[in-house]
Amino acid sequence: LIRSVDQTHDPALRCWVGSAHLPGADFPVQNLPFGVFRRRAASERFRCGVAIGDRILDVSAVLGAGLFSGEARVAAECCGEPALNRLMAAGPSRWKALRVALSAMLCDETVAGAVSPCLVPMSYTEMTLPARIGGYTDFFASIHHATNAGSLFRPDNPLLPNYKWLPVAYNGRASSVRVSGHDFHRPWGQLMPPGATTPLFAPTRKLDYELEVGAWIGESNVLGCAVSVDAAEDRLFGITLLNDWSARDLQAWEYQPLGPFLGKSFATTVSPWVITLDALSPFRCPQAVRGPADPAPLPHLDSAALHDRGAIDMHLEVCVRSKRMKDEGMEPMSLSRNRLTDLYWTFSQMVAHHTSNGCNLEAGDLVGSGTLSGAGPGTYGSLLEITRGGQTRFALPSGETRTYLDDADEVTFTAFCERAGFVRIGTGACTATVLPARPPYLAPTVAV
Amino acid sequence: LIRSVDQTHDPALRCWVGSAHLPGADFPVQNLPFGVFRRRAASERFRCGVAIGDRILDVSAVLGAGLFSGEARVAAECCGEPALNRLMAAGPSRWKALRVALSAMLCDETVAGAVSPCLVPMSYTEMTLPARIGGYTDFFASIHHATNAGSLFRPDNPLLPNYKWLPVAYNGRASSVRVSGHDFHRPWGQLMPPGATTPLFAPTRKLDYELEVGAWIGESNVLGCAVSVDAAEDRLFGITLLNDWSARDLQAWEYQPLGPFLGKSFATTVSPWVITLDALSPFRCPQAVRGPADPAPLPHLDSAALHDRGAIDMHLEVCVRSKRMKDEGMEPMSLSRNRLTDLYWTFSQMVAHHTSNGCNLEAGDLVGSGTLSGAGPGTYGSLLEITRGGQTRFALPSGETRTYLDDADEVTFTAFCERAGFVRIGTGACTATVLPARPPYLAPTVAV
Repeated sequence: LIRSVDQTHDPALRCWVGSAHLPGADFPVQNLPFGVFRRRAASERFRCGVAIGDRILDVSAVLGAGLFSGEARVAAECCGEPALNRLMAAGPSRWKALRVALSAMLCDETVAGAVSPCLVPMSYTEMTLPARIGGYTDFFASIHHATNAGSLFRPDNPLLPNYKWLPVAYNGRASSVRVSGHDFHRPWGQLMPPGATTPLFAPTRKLDYELEVGAWIGESNVLGCAVSVDAAEDRLFGITLLNDWSARDLQAWEYQPLGPFLGKSFATTVSPWVITLDALSPFRCPQAVRGPADPAPLPHLDSAALHDRGAIDMHLEVCVRSKRMKDEGMEPMSLSRNRLTDLYWTFSQMVAHHTSNGCNLEAGDLVGSGTLSGAGPGTYGSLLEITRGGQTRFALPSGETRTYLDDADEVTFTAFCERAGFVRIGTGACTATVLPARPPYLAPTVAV
Repeated sequence: LIRSVDQTHDPALRCWVGSAHLPGADFPVQNLPFGVFRRRAASERFRCGVAIGDRILDVSAVLGAGLFSGEARVAAECCGEPALNRLMAAGPSRWKALRVALSAMLCDETVAGAVSPCLVPMSYTEMTLPARIGGYTDFFASIHHATNAGSLFRPDNPLLPNYKWLPVAYNGRASSVRVSGHDFHRPWGQLMPPGATTPLFAPTRKLDYELEVGAWIGESNVLGCAVSVDAAEDRLFGITLLNDWSARDLQAWEYQPLGPFLGKSFATTVSPWVITLDALSPFRCPQAVRGPADPAPLPHLDSAALHDRGAIDMHLEVCVRSKRMKDEGMEPMSLSRNRLTDLYWTFSQMVAHHTSNGCNLEAGDLVGSGTLSGAGPGTYGSLLEITRGGQTRFALPSGETRTYLDDADEVTFTAFCERAGFVRIGTGACTATVLPARPPYLAPTVAV
């Protein structure tokens, strides 16, 4: 059910790309994440690549060297496209075969001469969205976040009765998901100021981020046929970081009775490198948040294998930097650190629930975890939680203070996995900067 | 802003396709809706066609006859694809040019010899979805439905405070939208029976339909740039009927706090023929539901042109037929009739609101009106309203009774527009039959 540790995770592997071995590198040869890139200067087509150290391996360019065979070759042949959808649809045995072949190739000095012309320095490239996203679904799977957010509205009863029985979710807006580095203007929207009786149409005053992990769906299921919780793992291609930007004032005014809509749909940012479930095998761990007093999931959402290794032990961090901090040469300030093990529901349970009514998930669909928060201060994944809904301010090292985000604030998420006996792997950054609001009917000043 | 009446609406037009003139025909030459078809017997590719009487004009096949020029030709060249997306993206001046050319061609006896080989009898064809749907958004724009549904939960205060200020909506699931005629198995899901303390995973016991009209988006807007309410009409390509099938027990248990999800995403049905906004010009009328006591919309949602002609006067009907009725040769039973003029928010206001935060709508996106209901009995667009949440039963002519839908029930929506001095036009039917539930991990027995 859960992919096993194999030779591609061996910490003794030596890659002939030197930068892959730098201490703290996100992309050692044990990682091998997939993304969609092109050289910035040239008018090139986007295509699929694999990150290795500070380089990108142009997978379809390697095809000509004749180093792929069998299922690995079939998978590599999917990589000439400007999106990972075809590779995602190719299924887990082909993903694995390509990973094994890439690992061997990058550790075999004798093919370095043939392969190295297919490496592009990351600094020369730009990235685009990993996939054409058909559906984007956002869950609410961090019980600490659900409790923290719920307690702002229902202090005595923060968790709703369904929370421990099913992974609550809503449909997000796929068209406005962009890759890390795409800045966006502060959105306008309708909001009801405190004490007012007439709403305003104005730029949001409560712009927030939400720290999430997004899972990318691989093979599709047929409409009308559910995916069992034990089969769900094979539907997951990999994960990225995800910033579910949120306008809290728009959201508060619009969300009854049908849920979030324009408070979310102006922008969502994902990191460009998809860390595969194969790469994450060494970091799987028990699903520890569910305690003995919690109800056992219904059988269709339950699995012994998930109890043992269903969670992913990933360390996440949120940093913010204001314009003044940047101008004065300050580093971004860390606002929170937490761990993906705090999820009450695993991604397999999310997929099993999502498809339990027969709903079809398709290759390239994106499934967000929901905001990731821990139990206490320093672990919250949104400003809503850090400032208790804007009631408290916090200080930046520049002497400025914040409740929600100001214009020109840059928000950056990073994450990594580490475990004794294995090589640390990272996700790369998910970052974007809030540009000032503009008249809503003018075209934006940034590339969208 | 709103497209004007022109020579294509002239009731004196005589089409050389005889069936277009039958009394009560849905598709006279004044209609000319677009859809995606192929001959059933042959292993043909789907392509775009126009309904005329009981025939379909294969638009790209006509190209060879050299009868299109200018913008009409550009539009016709979009029609060889298995979806209307490219034609939708071509924009309103090309849509109009193609309509004018098709109208002239179908009324010109001298070209009948050249064009008639490009007509396919509808009875030989099957239809597929009109477009690849990127995003499906469902609004809640019928104030009578919002009041009826709200009164089940909040008898003293059925409408929430935001209702008259913005068109409430949520993101739907695009992947499970199918064209009329695709039956589906009763979905499973998690539900909490009355009085129980542990939920069940079981086939839904409260399967309902929702009568809606869906608008199809034509030209896209750039992410970050809103569409003004006066420009919104030009973004609308046309409309179909839409059945937003709903499992009320799944919905009731899952929807707090983030809105509808699996209670809706198992199936959505649309009628195959997209009635263009151009065809609807004679039937535009004042937005009459908003009364003098209601607040004026905020300026970004308001327009004098919309007050005068923003609504569409369309008559809608819901019919149901059980298996016993079918076996005994009975006609479907009419459950409700109502009018699209009962919408509190126009489609232009929905588009303006949807994009007001910069969210990009794309060609082929689908925007549902929300359940259409009138003010009194006989006009309700869902069984939830007809049976007051399942509290009352109604009788079928076969002697059976219902609260919600039984297995093998067939639900059919139809609609038409009529006005003195113009020719009546119809939408064609939106129909599907509920098949019995099957074990959820078995592939369905019907084509999906």
